[in-house]
Amino acid sequence: VAPKLYDYYRSTAAYRVRIALNLKGIDYEKIPVNLKPGLDEQHSTAYRLVNPQSRVPTYVDGFFNVGQSSAILEYLEETHPEPALLPRDPVHRAKVRELCAIIGCDIHPVNNLSILQYLKNELNVDPLDVQNWYSHWIHQGFGAIEAHLERSELAGHPYCFGEHLSMADLYLTAQVYNANRFDVDISAYPLILEIDAACQKLPEFNKAAPENH
Amino acid sequence: VAPKLYDYYRSTAAYRVRIALNLKGIDYEKIPVNLKPGLDEQHSTAYRLVNPQSRVPTYVDGFFNVGQSSAILEYLEETHPEPALLPRDPVHRAKVRELCAIIGCDIHPVNNLSILQYLKNELNVDPLDVQNWYSHWIHQGFGAIEAHLERSELAGHPYCFGEHLSMADLYLTAQVYNANRFDVDISAYPLILEIDAACQKLPEFNKAAPENH
Repeated sequence: VAPKLYDYYRSTAAYRVRIALNLKGIDYEKIPVNLKPGLDEQHSTAYRLVNPQSRVPTYVDGFFNVGQSSAILEYLEETHPEPALLPRDPVHRAKVRELCAIIGCDIHPVNNLSILQYLKNELNVDPLDVQNWYSHWIHQGFGAIEAHLERSELAGHPYCFGEHLSMADLYLTAQVYNANRFDVDISAYPLILEIDAACQKLPEFNKAAPENH
Repeated sequence: VAPKLYDYYRSTAAYRVRIALNLKGIDYEKIPVNLKPGLDEQHSTAYRLVNPQSRVPTYVDGFFNVGQSSAILEYLEETHPEPALLPRDPVHRAKVRELCAIIGCDIHPVNNLSILQYLKNELNVDPLDVQNWYSHWIHQGFGAIEAHLERSELAGHPYCFGEHLSMADLYLTAQVYNANRFDVDISAYPLILEIDAACQKLPEFNKAAPENH
């Protein structure tokens, strides 16, 4: 039985996982969960049984369910080691995971749908201020990532950590997609843009892109 | 040379790392970075060289710096495998990492100092609404975790995943500390409270606690 991915095309967390599945050549069945406000399929009783957090993605491999994209990506890496998305050396692995976490912990969650909805609906924050909130955390995180990349001899040759793709590239491209979707001007981050452009040339990234789902 | 931890006593991300260092018996030098509003040592030029994201913790092992607690914890696990804080089986490892990420991605970052300050200072959100924001994300995340624990046969015997401590216990206890600090009523989560109480009996947790730093 093929593994299943509970997925929403615009979820950047699901997007990361789709890229990894493509790169590792894992066939999977996609089960859409429509997060669109008003539909909110993630809050259905049925889906809460799959994922008590009511979030996507959830990966199902046999009888085993796991949510949270970082946990899914590490699981895929451990069970399908080739092609590797983490280097071998613990120091290098730590640097890759650090970049992933800057995005996966400090940019994405503070800008996700549930947060933006809370700002709008519970705190009556003006739409322009919601947009500024979104941009602020993009700039904070991308500024830090650009500084990391500037210090690295590997960055942009052509990926975040040199000639081999890593998990960091998955996080980065999905977040660049999201920043563009929200019309944030990210021209101040030339290394990020260069790496994103290099990744977009790969069919595994393109096939995972929201517009193709 | 002993590794260094750039640390702030109240940072729950740093707290997780302190527990892991104690459990693994790693001697380290603690370098305090005072995040207290008004002092804001994390934004100093000197600290930005250590950590371009201006956040704690940062772990320094020889010439190598790494930020982001999740990356640090995985690095410690890979370089000091005993006692293990991740199980051996990839399925079990994924479940541990999922629980860590619910806290590390979806509770902690949306409630951290920089977010609460932005709500107060940039959006002029009323202190009571800031408190409700904080509680909301605690209840959302703890509700999901409690549901995960209820489904597991291992939970609370005595830790999140049975008789062996795991990374999940580090995340959980640090987040419980933080919830209590913000006076959130978490009595609706008996399994979480039971696991926290079991962990608090261990000297490695106690020695890492904010009040002892």
